[in-house]
Amino acid sequence: MRFFNRFAQGELRLNRIEAFSDGVFAIIVTLLVLELKVPALQNQRSVSELAGRLVDLLPQFLSWLISFVIVCKFWLNHHHIFGLARHANYSLVWLNVLFLMCQSFIPFPTALMGEHASNPLAVSFFGCVMAINTIAFISMHRYILRHLLKPEFAEAQDPHIILKSFVGVVSYLIGAACAWVSVDVAFAVYLLTPLFFIVPPQGRKVESQTGTSHSSVTE
Amino acid sequence: MRFFNRFAQGELRLNRIEAFSDGVFAIIVTLLVLELKVPALQNQRSVSELAGRLVDLLPQFLSWLISFVIVCKFWLNHHHIFGLARHANYSLVWLNVLFLMCQSFIPFPTALMGEHASNPLAVSFFGCVMAINTIAFISMHRYILRHLLKPEFAEAQDPHIILKSFVGVVSYLIGAACAWVSVDVAFAVYLLTPLFFIVPPQGRKVESQTGTSHSSVTE
Amino acid sequence: MRFFNRFAQGELRLNRIEAFSDGVFAIIVTLLVLELKVPALQNQRSVSELAGRLVDLLPQFLSWLISFVIVCKFWLNHHHIFGLARHANYSLVWLNVLFLMCQSFIPFPTALMGEHASNPLAVSFFGCVMAINTIAFISMHRYILRHLLKPEFAEAQDPHIILKSFVGVVSYLIGAACAWVSVDVAFAVYLLTPLFFIVPPQGRKVESQTGTSHSSVTE
Amino acid sequence: MRFFNRFAQGELRLNRIEAFSDGVFAIIVTLLVLELKVPALQNQRSVSELAGRLVDLLPQFLSWLISFVIVCKFWLNHHHIFGLARHANYSLVWLNVLFLMCQSFIPFPTALMGEHASNPLAVSFFGCVMAINTIAFISMHRYILRHLLKPEFAEAQDPHIILKSFVGVVSYLIGAACAWVSVDVAFAVYLLTPLFFIVPPQGRKVESQTGTSHSSVTE
Repeated sequence: MRFFNRFAQGELRLNRIEAFSDGVFAIIVTLLVLELKVPALQNQRSVSELAGRLVDLLPQFLSWLISFVIVCKFWLNHHHIFGLARHANYSLVWLNVLFLMCQSFIPFPTALMGEHASNPLAVSFFGCVMAINTIAFISMHRYILRHLLKPEFAEAQDPHIILKSFVGVVSYLIGAACAWVSVDVAFAVYLLTPLFFIVPPQGRKVESQTGTSHSSVTE
Repeated sequence: MRFFNRFAQGELRLNRIEAFSDGVFAIIVTLLVLELKVPALQNQRSVSELAGRLVDLLPQFLSWLISFVIVCKFWLNHHHIFGLARHANYSLVWLNVLFLMCQSFIPFPTALMGEHASNPLAVSFFGCVMAINTIAFISMHRYILRHLLKPEFAEAQDPHIILKSFVGVVSYLIGAACAWVSVDVAFAVYLLTPLFFIVPPQGRKVESQTGTSHSSVTE
Repeated sequence: MRFFNRFAQGELRLNRIEAFSDGVFAIIVTLLVLELKVPALQNQRSVSELAGRLVDLLPQFLSWLISFVIVCKFWLNHHHIFGLARHANYSLVWLNVLFLMCQSFIPFPTALMGEHASNPLAVSFFGCVMAINTIAFISMHRYILRHLLKPEFAEAQDPHIILKSFVGVVSYLIGAACAWVSVDVAFAVYLLTPLFFIVPPQGRKVESQTGTSHSSVTE
Repeated sequence: MRFFNRFAQGELRLNRIEAFSDGVFAIIVTLLVLELKVPALQNQRSVSELAGRLVDLLPQFLSWLISFVIVCKFWLNHHHIFGLARHANYSLVWLNVLFLMCQSFIPFPTALMGEHASNPLAVSFFGCVMAINTIAFISMHRYILRHLLKPEFAEAQDPHIILKSFVGVVSYLIGAACAWVSVDVAFAVYLLTPLFFIVPPQGRKVESQTGTSHSSVTE
């Protein structure tokens, strides 16, 4: 009896949480493109007018690109930390719901930044939302490490991983602060933050034999 | 031969029903954000104008937040009750379709309440839709308990679970009634209803050894 | 070597085809609600004005309801016939793509019928699209029965199942024809067609011991 | 310990990458129809006016049709090449993210080409986006063949498969060039490119016993 309950609460639920989360991630990244509205033209056949309109859309393209990379990075990290958990419980489910709520909000600041790229508040708002997303992720990561970690991964964890993850929070907040001086710098910071974490953490691989298992969760 | 049919009707179908339902849940929660429209600005660079527009969006943010939590709560409960079923049959599939139809309708009352937050009918309508959703969920839950319950969970079920679930229906209807007096109170009731059920039912865990299996389905 | 190829072409691919199809079905039914636009109000707090606007939306509610039931019925039947196939091949994949293309078109005639409910062409167009969808489904069903049927289901198949499925095609075309006389009758025919097939085919259960396996695919 | 890490990095991740990718593909093909806007009518009941409006939508129908077939072809090829990989690693994940980014951009050029079908730039832009998509796919395919190929598929691979895949790139670019002379020819080229690859590569089946495993990835 206890076995069945453990199972129902554990692996099975983990699978459906992952499926639900994957669905949300997939929809977010795909919805982002809906913010790119087809421009209206006065002269349907005018190439130069359309070219001009497409150039006007550049901030929105860039905004879409940044959000796409950031959400994919979150998806990859989400994938990683759920692989560390031996099963799920209510706390994890609600931490995950909170995180997905923050994620599914992303299309709004993305569209806001794309349409009002010269407005410091719009650009700064984007960075703050990403910082909150990272905090929501970190709290979920921390909970798994403390309460649900698979025994076989226990010693392979970098003890400073959570602390290192705050680099992402700080980076997004720096971008949000930069927006009040120059929106271009803020765009650059937003774009570089996830790119910085794309490279597999080779260096850490040396410090422990298991290497790959405690990597790439920072953002 | 009978074995194959049983299998085809049973576990396999249950998996695809869950996958389909998870997809619908994931899309609903993610689509909700599309109702948050980026405000147009007269002066593109004006911080104060954008700040004012964002404050105007507060009812829509709140409406989005409430629906997000409610749908996630339904998803969690859906997950739970399908874990109790030993297989699926036509009745369950159509009860599930009816429930998902009610769920996928949610973006409409959410947007309606967000855009017309001062209109009692819009706010009341939201509560009625949620009450109907809860009833659709209860009828599915009741069907599983009566006809498809896995034997190993039979004695672990709280005999009053269905009755208790009607607390959610009543709570949403109270909110819908409150809307005619004060929309603020209605918003509060809608927000508190799912939050009330977030806490894992620790108390009941004592009354039966199996604890976790019959919990969290109330709403 | 042959074994691996068979596996790669067979079961595995079937799983991913089903996952892809389930995703498409889930998105279609959920997108349908986006056609229900929140009405604008001259007086934000006017209950009577909002009530009037919601009543004006009734054709769109009905259109949404009909499409939701029809797509869910197709999903259920899709689920059923893929359970009959022992593996997939290129022909099945492309028949499935063709079918999903017809399915994913459904939001357009649904919105068209909802917004122009008094226009015979809009209502008739809806019925024709559904007839084409049913034909696409039948051709996929027929292909599975002829080329990919699992041996254990071979004798359990109703030899007239494909013929019976054309009842759905004829029914939708009758609805499309009725639209030119009375759109109300057409709406009724569209709504009744899938409802007619909801009931589990009890009668046929008697004629063969395996019963459940060859049922419910008609539409 | 090493075994667990390998597993966590390998098979499991492959499953979730596929699930995530399938979700993105399913959403893209379904979102495409949202670009088909219901036309407004001056006379609600006028059949001839609605018929005229639907005929005006023909370029958008065609644009939707072409993109649908192209994305489904990519999905099928994606499915195929991931079946060749023995596990996933960081490089593959990010190549996949890059590819999905290109894919999820497709609704924009599709809508652009549909709305401005007479504008050479809009039609040409579509072809260029598809060529870039094909290049992104080829780089992912090439990476799998070089670094992650399952040993049992090693000798069954067509050594010229990557070269052959560039036929798709060239074909889309030819279409993009044709757009400046005649948009109709460009539409035809775009439509024929994926159709050309639909037929299962029977010929190659002869040259190696394993046949089916190295086919259909060209585009």
